[in-house]
Amino acid sequence: MKKIVLIGSGNVATHFGIALKEKGFNILQVWSYNTKNAKVLADKLMCEYTSKIENILAADLYILSIKDDSIINIIKNLSDIPIIHTSGSTSIDVFKNKFSKYGVIYPLQKFKKNIKINLTEIPLLIEANNHKFEKDLIYISSKLSKNTLTVSSKIRKQLHIAAVFASNFTNYMLTIAEKILESQNLDFKLLLPLVNETINNLNSNSPSELQTGPAIRNDEKIIKMHLENLKDEQDKEIYSLISHAIKKDNE
Amino acid sequence: MKKIVLIGSGNVATHFGIALKEKGFNILQVWSYNTKNAKVLADKLMCEYTSKIENILAADLYILSIKDDSIINIIKNLSDIPIIHTSGSTSIDVFKNKFSKYGVIYPLQKFKKNIKINLTEIPLLIEANNHKFEKDLIYISSKLSKNTLTVSSKIRKQLHIAAVFASNFTNYMLTIAEKILESQNLDFKLLLPLVNETINNLNSNSPSELQTGPAIRNDEKIIKMHLENLKDEQDKEIYSLISHAIKKDNE
Repeated sequence: MKKIVLIGSGNVATHFGIALKEKGFNILQVWSYNTKNAKVLADKLMCEYTSKIENILAADLYILSIKDDSIINIIKNLSDIPIIHTSGSTSIDVFKNKFSKYGVIYPLQKFKKNIKINLTEIPLLIEANNHKFEKDLIYISSKLSKNTLTVSSKIRKQLHIAAVFASNFTNYMLTIAEKILESQNLDFKLLLPLVNETINNLNSNSPSELQTGPAIRNDEKIIKMHLENLKDEQDKEIYSLISHAIKKDNE
Repeated sequence: MKKIVLIGSGNVATHFGIALKEKGFNILQVWSYNTKNAKVLADKLMCEYTSKIENILAADLYILSIKDDSIINIIKNLSDIPIIHTSGSTSIDVFKNKFSKYGVIYPLQKFKKNIKINLTEIPLLIEANNHKFEKDLIYISSKLSKNTLTVSSKIRKQLHIAAVFASNFTNYMLTIAEKILESQNLDFKLLLPLVNETINNLNSNSPSELQTGPAIRNDEKIIKMHLENLKDEQDKEIYSLISHAIKKDNE
């Protein structure tokens, strides 16, 4: 499992590539539709690159980090080499009947190419089509992170949904807050101590124990006043729906 | 402005009382409807306490940290002594025609009695009915925090709404994530590296620049699959509304 080809050159491929190289794995080649992107990552990893599927080299492992929609198209052109993808919502079965050894390593994290992330603490969720290959994937994953876990495609999918709420949707709540502050010519940074405190408390309590605010206090007067003072119809609708949900959960 | 009476014994009164005492202010007395609560805080501050409004002592400043709904009832029984409240959503005008010097110091933070918070970084939002009293309030606030700001009742109200989104509603998104993980017998803590990364990025970028996920990628296939896999109708509705909002904002 030492010689690896990275299929993809996006955020996950970049972070995985760099971390694997640091841990002594031999990255042979980077493939991307886009030659320029392939070259950027290959330069970082000091390896070959190609944009032609037929030029992808043989290796011990192919790591596929591309858009979910593209996976089926790419894999039909690949040889039977041990292969994994890194997607939260694509089933392991995408590889079925085509490969002998296949699996998934899904990092429960958001990545941006230019923001350095230490993989050590990041949960890596592993799935494999047989026990021996699972052991190979656990070996690789445990070189990258202290936090590895074997989960089925079904559970991984639920984790991906939870991640959308925990990251994408929390970020959107903050985007609405930012918009409100900007409408008053105030800097979003004013809210950072509050946001940090909200998140820091999660180290010792679970979020369901930490809910505060007008909805959980059933403070209809404040809720009504807030709704009257929200300018954007969409924000009103979101405020109303979430307040209703918080109240209902605590009835 | 050295002799202060705290009217209220909840989270804000507790944190303000302790911080003011540390900075050399003289807390004369704590009032609360509930004698036991008054005593708990008074013991911490080594001062007197009462549950009778008519026994509230004269002072240089009354700090009112009680429920919004109770403010009007309490203040009609108080003498004309400089007074402030600490509420986000109650206008300064609640004091009008009754007091000569009045104002607001609203801390943009969530407090829990037993979680120690350093007030130094917390924005304190100040409003006063005249310039001289505003200077007094700026003096007191700047002893407690490096981050003081004068804002009108109208702006403070908008900040309170933004805080509901930034803290209460982000926490509720995490509560839904927690529920999904629990349904798979997984610990919420698995999501903490992702949540921390989401929030850490806010030090260098604003949330509107950091939005990721299926909605902003317009990945209808994943959105549809997530909606099909969400078990709770209310969670489905929230997933759908927020995804729609993210897409619409980025059209």
